[in-house]
Amino acid sequence: MNNRIHNFSAGPSTLPTSVVQEMQENLLSYQGSGMSVMEMSHRGDLFMEIIEEARTRIRRLYGLSDAYDVLFVHGGASLQFAMVPMNFIGEGESADYIETGTWSTKAITEVRIQNKGVRVVASSGDREFTYIPEAFDFSPEARFVHITTNNTIRGTQWHALPETDGVPLIADMSSDILSRPVDMDRFGMIYGGAQKNMGPSGTAVVILRKDFVERIPQALPTMLSYRTYVEKESMFNTPATFPIYAISLVTKWLEETMGGLAAMEAVNRRKASKLYGVIDEDDFYEGTAEKNDRSLMNATFRLRQRELEPVFVKQSLEAGFAGLKGHKSVGGLRASIYNAVSEASVDVLCDFMDAFRRKHR
Amino acid sequence: MNNRIHNFSAGPSTLPTSVVQEMQENLLSYQGSGMSVMEMSHRGDLFMEIIEEARTRIRRLYGLSDAYDVLFVHGGASLQFAMVPMNFIGEGESADYIETGTWSTKAITEVRIQNKGVRVVASSGDREFTYIPEAFDFSPEARFVHITTNNTIRGTQWHALPETDGVPLIADMSSDILSRPVDMDRFGMIYGGAQKNMGPSGTAVVILRKDFVERIPQALPTMLSYRTYVEKESMFNTPATFPIYAISLVTKWLEETMGGLAAMEAVNRRKASKLYGVIDEDDFYEGTAEKNDRSLMNATFRLRQRELEPVFVKQSLEAGFAGLKGHKSVGGLRASIYNAVSEASVDVLCDFMDAFRRKHR
Repeated sequence: MNNRIHNFSAGPSTLPTSVVQEMQENLLSYQGSGMSVMEMSHRGDLFMEIIEEARTRIRRLYGLSDAYDVLFVHGGASLQFAMVPMNFIGEGESADYIETGTWSTKAITEVRIQNKGVRVVASSGDREFTYIPEAFDFSPEARFVHITTNNTIRGTQWHALPETDGVPLIADMSSDILSRPVDMDRFGMIYGGAQKNMGPSGTAVVILRKDFVERIPQALPTMLSYRTYVEKESMFNTPATFPIYAISLVTKWLEETMGGLAAMEAVNRRKASKLYGVIDEDDFYEGTAEKNDRSLMNATFRLRQRELEPVFVKQSLEAGFAGLKGHKSVGGLRASIYNAVSEASVDVLCDFMDAFRRKHR
Repeated sequence: MNNRIHNFSAGPSTLPTSVVQEMQENLLSYQGSGMSVMEMSHRGDLFMEIIEEARTRIRRLYGLSDAYDVLFVHGGASLQFAMVPMNFIGEGESADYIETGTWSTKAITEVRIQNKGVRVVASSGDREFTYIPEAFDFSPEARFVHITTNNTIRGTQWHALPETDGVPLIADMSSDILSRPVDMDRFGMIYGGAQKNMGPSGTAVVILRKDFVERIPQALPTMLSYRTYVEKESMFNTPATFPIYAISLVTKWLEETMGGLAAMEAVNRRKASKLYGVIDEDDFYEGTAEKNDRSLMNATFRLRQRELEPVFVKQSLEAGFAGLKGHKSVGGLRASIYNAVSEASVDVLCDFMDAFRRKHR
């Protein structure tokens, strides 16, 4: 359709074609206003409706109670790595972090940079982050337990939440936000960069439990305090209006086309199951993550014949696929199958992988 | 053209129609790649070319020497208000700030929040920020002198830089960046949110003199250290790819269509001169800023008959103008005539204002 490629990029990544089409149609004149969403005041009625729609749809998709606020914060997940300890770990306090890959390591680093208390209570670094740790030793006095629900680079995902004895979770959900229902009662905060399951890069969505706001110290720089975003409804300064517009359309698509998060998860499971099925058929392909912990969002794999990997990447590009090269830090191959990657695209990829195997076995 | 409105919004604000058209044409498939710029890896060749083009064109437009880096930093100017003292005012050091309106006040507030040394060496707060102060008492030991080159809300602008005895300037140029040539040798740093003269909101452009990088302390949160953006070429994490794409197109338009910053300034002066000419014709309209300090970007004015202001706003909307209502904190009227507001749009506005005067005099 419209010469769209099969886009398996890990992020920024594909958006639903219908969403991009709607953005395209409205780009010069949003709903007859004579201007693009990019060009309108963030305090005007038109944009206020857009941000409210994005917020409301996220609330509805996750079934959020009034106990939670939905915020749009600048700067992607990496800025949240710093804001979380700044806002929620006070003097003499400490938080527990579980290390499951590059992004969680970065989150931990940001706590240490601030000389805040952090205990790494489990890590899968001993086996190159190819699994999700099962044994934990949480501190009952921890302010929160931080997890990375999906690990984009290594292709692992939490399929059940860790038991934390009532200590609230804070989760970086950048790469699986809005991909499945979530037991929200377990979370003090969820955050995610927009650019995988929600829209263009440049903003993060933060879902914050209101009692967490009380923990925020008063003296933080204004833009680095979640309180600012709560009190000003994410409008202390100009928010990233165009990404928020995309989020409003993507969440509309999630509700009205895909039928909500449970239905979306079912599709995501089917897509992943097809793809892992091809990988597991024999030893031509090798999944790199422990089977039980495999991600429904990022399927990481290798070719047993390593020397064929560049051939695979080259031929996949020629065949109209994008983004199948693994992250530069680990190599190999990766197919990111976020919400907006259609089942039809996954089918075409499976066919390509089958054919590649037949040719090179 | 395409039912585009005459958009005088203060920010986010209009982009050149040709730029939005090019974005529209490429929205589903950028240069035949089968994906939008929003949907492609920020580390792929296509986006690397885009960010390099944006950087190079900004360098060329300002005639930057190798002594300066061009950075794309998350979060708009408001985050820079906090990052500037965090990066450039050390223990026992101090900076001089000139207060010329809301945004400079906010910048000063962020220094104080961090308990960093700040001296407000001049303020036009005594007359509601309607002028640019002329008398300064700079501290020779100040790390830098901070100014806000254009004051969007009150409609004032620095037309000559303050003499600072060799102390480098740091300037918030959010609302007049790339609107005129700048004597770059005077500046240690220039920053501006994208959403007025450059593109959609969600990123800031920072021009940083390299010797300033040496002043940055080591222990800052990664995303809050300008050093990160210098060392990683603004790609430590995913930058705001779509706004940066827009910046690449807007700067191309500035170079290739408008003919560079000197030519752009000439057009901007002509537009402002026409508009202030209408305002000054008699006492029906009243400019709110001191004539010598009037902004070329934001013309702020009132109606002598205050009760007519809502009528003006209403009729302007009906006549196909957007954004003529003054900032909520000061009321009145404002026409923002950034680079992308065409001279033709200004002419139409002048005609509207003339007609309104004839009708209501």
